[in-house]
Amino acid sequence: MSVEFQPQSDCSKHDIEEGAAFAPRFDSNGLITAVVCDALDNSVLMVAHMNAQALSLTLETGIAHYWSRSRQQLWKKGETSGNLQTVISLTTDCDQDALCLHVEVAGNGPTCHTERRSCFYRQVSLIDGAARLTIKSE
Amino acid sequence: MSVEFQPQSDCSKHDIEEGAAFAPRFDSNGLITAVVCDALDNSVLMVAHMNAQALSLTLETGIAHYWSRSRQQLWKKGETSGNLQTVISLTTDCDQDALCLHVEVAGNGPTCHTERRSCFYRQVSLIDGAARLTIKSE
Repeated sequence: MSVEFQPQSDCSKHDIEEGAAFAPRFDSNGLITAVVCDALDNSVLMVAHMNAQALSLTLETGIAHYWSRSRQQLWKKGETSGNLQTVISLTTDCDQDALCLHVEVAGNGPTCHTERRSCFYRQVSLIDGAARLTIKSE
Repeated sequence: MSVEFQPQSDCSKHDIEEGAAFAPRFDSNGLITAVVCDALDNSVLMVAHMNAQALSLTLETGIAHYWSRSRQQLWKKGETSGNLQTVISLTTDCDQDALCLHVEVAGNGPTCHTERRSCFYRQVSLIDGAARLTIKSE
């Protein structure tokens, strides 16, 4: 069994912004952007994408599932590493074209494949007019 | 004058993940996803998109600029409302296809066009097997 989502084409702007029906706007590839935050301190851990199946599984199981664009397959984050993400809250934005998950990461393990806690480990700055990256301190 | 960004095609996987050169991966529409957080408490305020010009202006001025997909034009957030976003930090993720901005919103005003502080004001839950939205308490 999977969760059915209301098509946005059935909804008015007011329904989408203020209504109680969840009508996620998937893009032309059938994906919606998901921002993933650590429920402990709100810090952004990663940005990923979900298709309808991944979103449905996330809602049904309480464990975050995504669509891997590089591998073109369903991705139960942490299935291999053990760093599963338990969803504490799932929110959507005004036009329902983005999701925000607050999660608990199993084992407080790294989210990033580089073994860092967050994928956002580098700061962008202008140095002598050029954009450069520096590693953030945790 | 605008900031030049390194094309990802010139970079190895190691350069992209560990190097000091900023080589943002713009999508086929020339856009990169930007997660915008309140610098005060890390809460996610909105998800937007930048093209190279918006990203360059953001770095040069310290004020967040985006590309409005609905209006197909450069968007200096808050130019009309006064709720300009001063960038406190700008980070990128491991594969440099997403950005995260921590901002101070002028006047502590609303970020969302619905006059709410954050665009993520609704929680998604399964109720009797259907996905429903409820307004989050602030």
